[in-house]
Amino acid sequence: MRPWRTLARRVLLSRPPWMEVAEERIALPDGREVDAFLSIRTRDFAAIVAVTERDELVLIRSYKHGARTISLAVPAGYIEANEDPLAAAKRELLEETGHEARDWTPLGRFVVDGNYGVATENIFLARNARRIAEPASGDLEEMEILLVPLHDVMSLLLRGEVAQLSSAAALALAAVFLRDRDSRSPRVAST
Amino acid sequence: MRPWRTLARRVLLSRPPWMEVAEERIALPDGREVDAFLSIRTRDFAAIVAVTERDELVLIRSYKHGARTISLAVPAGYIEANEDPLAAAKRELLEETGHEARDWTPLGRFVVDGNYGVATENIFLARNARRIAEPASGDLEEMEILLVPLHDVMSLLLRGEVAQLSSAAALALAAVFLRDRDSRSPRVAST
Repeated sequence: MRPWRTLARRVLLSRPPWMEVAEERIALPDGREVDAFLSIRTRDFAAIVAVTERDELVLIRSYKHGARTISLAVPAGYIEANEDPLAAAKRELLEETGHEARDWTPLGRFVVDGNYGVATENIFLARNARRIAEPASGDLEEMEILLVPLHDVMSLLLRGEVAQLSSAAALALAAVFLRDRDSRSPRVAST
Repeated sequence: MRPWRTLARRVLLSRPPWMEVAEERIALPDGREVDAFLSIRTRDFAAIVAVTERDELVLIRSYKHGARTISLAVPAGYIEANEDPLAAAKRELLEETGHEARDWTPLGRFVVDGNYGVATENIFLARNARRIAEPASGDLEEMEILLVPLHDVMSLLLRGEVAQLSSAAALALAAVFLRDRDSRSPRVAST
């Protein structure tokens, strides 16, 4: 199995630093050519599943215009130029929720759209999170911080309370990861 | 907490039926106005986590140009005009993998990008899937069908073998859903 090759690329819309839309002429492995395959670039971002020592998720309730609705989401934000994804995750968790965390685990990086690209989401699990400051996100959205029991993840998701794919993916990945860990080693009571 | 209001909308790029990019003038709840908030519309899609009677996932290995890599993904595809998402899921599972399934469960619908919109992913779990035909997707990509043990989901995801967020979200959601079910009721052997 071989990748496609980009023969030519033409920018259709440029809004730095937010978005670029282009069309590409593509060579498929079987020799066919595709004339105007669309490609979108927006900014990569980090998303954080933060869990407190009491096994509560640190979630944000806000209006998101892409979803046209008020819903629950994990803390997340754009990665600045030359910023490490983990550093961005720590910064966004602090800015958006006033929390820091001792234990960080990367849960993967995923391309938002398989055809158009759009951006890469970098997902982190932050354990032993605790509040150390007032939130000060600087974002356009009003935000409300909530603590939700970790074991309620699936019912939150099935009830439609999480509107964004980036948050649903992060929450479900963290839930699978934490249960795999629990099933590998006997659970030890916190001291 | 109140939603934003769109005061005006101007189309910047139109490529029917694939994509429309627009900018909107927005009124925030606090009275401020945002001048050129970008909005993307592409086609909504269905994604299917298909599990056989032997607890194997039906996955597709292919090159995806948005991710610029060959990776594993769940069967998925665009919903046609006036098509029901579940009908699209059944059609795509059959076209892409030659499988049909007896038991279908919706696992949620999620907006691909919280700021720009992009599309809505409709995720379905299809249990007791079985192969009844040759795959015939009609897509541009070469595809290879794989059966992977369900309990390997998290290691697949952590090893970076799933590049697309839409697939990672679907697989992790299905894994949490199935484990929640198993922990609620004692497992019954198939007859």
